[in-house]
Amino acid sequence: MLTFIGLGLYDERSVTVEGREALRAADRVFAEFYTSRLVGTTVDDLAAHHGVDVEVRDREGVEQRPEPILDAAEDGDVAFLTAGDTMISTTHVDLRVRAAERGVDTRVIHGVTAQSAASSLTGLQNYRFGKAVTLPFPYAHGADGVPQSVRDGIDANRDRGLHTLVYLDIKVAGSSPAGPQPGEPDEYMSASTAAEMLADDWDASALGVVVGRAGSPDPVVAADRLGALADRDFGDPLHMLVVPGDLHHLEAEALETLAGCPAEALPEF
Amino acid sequence: MLTFIGLGLYDERSVTVEGREALRAADRVFAEFYTSRLVGTTVDDLAAHHGVDVEVRDREGVEQRPEPILDAAEDGDVAFLTAGDTMISTTHVDLRVRAAERGVDTRVIHGVTAQSAASSLTGLQNYRFGKAVTLPFPYAHGADGVPQSVRDGIDANRDRGLHTLVYLDIKVAGSSPAGPQPGEPDEYMSASTAAEMLADDWDASALGVVVGRAGSPDPVVAADRLGALADRDFGDPLHMLVVPGDLHHLEAEALETLAGCPAEALPEF
Repeated sequence: MLTFIGLGLYDERSVTVEGREALRAADRVFAEFYTSRLVGTTVDDLAAHHGVDVEVRDREGVEQRPEPILDAAEDGDVAFLTAGDTMISTTHVDLRVRAAERGVDTRVIHGVTAQSAASSLTGLQNYRFGKAVTLPFPYAHGADGVPQSVRDGIDANRDRGLHTLVYLDIKVAGSSPAGPQPGEPDEYMSASTAAEMLADDWDASALGVVVGRAGSPDPVVAADRLGALADRDFGDPLHMLVVPGDLHHLEAEALETLAGCPAEALPEF
Repeated sequence: MLTFIGLGLYDERSVTVEGREALRAADRVFAEFYTSRLVGTTVDDLAAHHGVDVEVRDREGVEQRPEPILDAAEDGDVAFLTAGDTMISTTHVDLRVRAAERGVDTRVIHGVTAQSAASSLTGLQNYRFGKAVTLPFPYAHGADGVPQSVRDGIDANRDRGLHTLVYLDIKVAGSSPAGPQPGEPDEYMSASTAAEMLADDWDASALGVVVGRAGSPDPVVAADRLGALADRDFGDPLHMLVVPGDLHHLEAEALETLAGCPAEALPEF
């Protein structure tokens, strides 16, 4: 049995009660933290908190060489952990399909996702979000600035009045030749960097909404023009950025009341 | 202090550990179940499990007369519960804005949403979903069949290659003059009813993916042409339906392996 368990967004207590029970009951616990991180804890603290050994696998160990995980799941109860929800990534669907093809039973215990939190914290309605985009570090796509595909994605949503969630790049040390080297700290793109990139290459006067540390006890939500957000500091990671499309009256009110948006950055109603 | 707590999708154990701690520590606990339900438990069982009194409010008691909730939050720690995530609904953003305007501190503890689960269970990639739609019971919108706005929403997503999550109507007894009357059972639209409506009014040969009982220990995921799904029984509620746009190879493989999709209903690769 292979149980995929989403740990949610922040620390040991972000998992569901059901997920916690399942991970504590597992014979072996694998995890990956290259797609996202729980910034409110460490792997050692997570393992100690739950009283389990956590065997962390890098991208190669999940995508290229998953056999040890699948073998273990044939013989016993295996939990596979990620931040957020385990299936919000093609990779882990692939792992689940491979398990199913080997006749291994699988189950998914869902976790809170960044996408839900972005909608929930900002007051922007979830059904008015279009397709999300990811803004990479310039070195990761071999060019300066904002890739055309990111600008096109935002524009296509806005043409339909829809909001865009912009995921910001994470580089885990050792995962990319151009990124931080093994032993160096991981890199997290800040929302101010992202706002500056979009202000320079896209539209400095457009409205942006920063969501920092979603799921933590001290999330920050801040709305202003991208050019203004570029000059602010939103503290510790993880950050996301939302570029709104058309705003309903109540969405605008939420941005003003809950995200400190200056009235002049909002449309008139 | 007013803490909005999402209970997740199914039963008492679908809440996060953090959410459980917060709801147990609250001085008063309010809840609403008119936007969605935890079908794996009852309000009495939920209250007993957590050792709290749960004061359930109907739509009017939240939207028109929220003062008792806000008054209590001025004087103590109040938890406000919903299924899923509390903010995936305009209503509760409004309640949060009203609290903030009265100077009451607010906090959101996120819950797993149906939207995340639909993506996660089907293997359809979350960033390839467009704007979701809700399919109402015919009596709820005063006409037979599928509203034009629902068909247009699906078509607009498909024009961009995107998947559409179709939420299926829920009628809580007494909430609508035309729906179930007080004392009668609540009504949940089944995925087969939804598939039949879409097959009749839109495209019987189009692919659909049923997601039943997301977040429960026995979710069902089934993919086939809408005309074929209309003839099947997917068991207990809640159900959702996904109408895919373009499929990536791995998405198609997931539908075949994890959702039993007949090969002839899938595109060639």
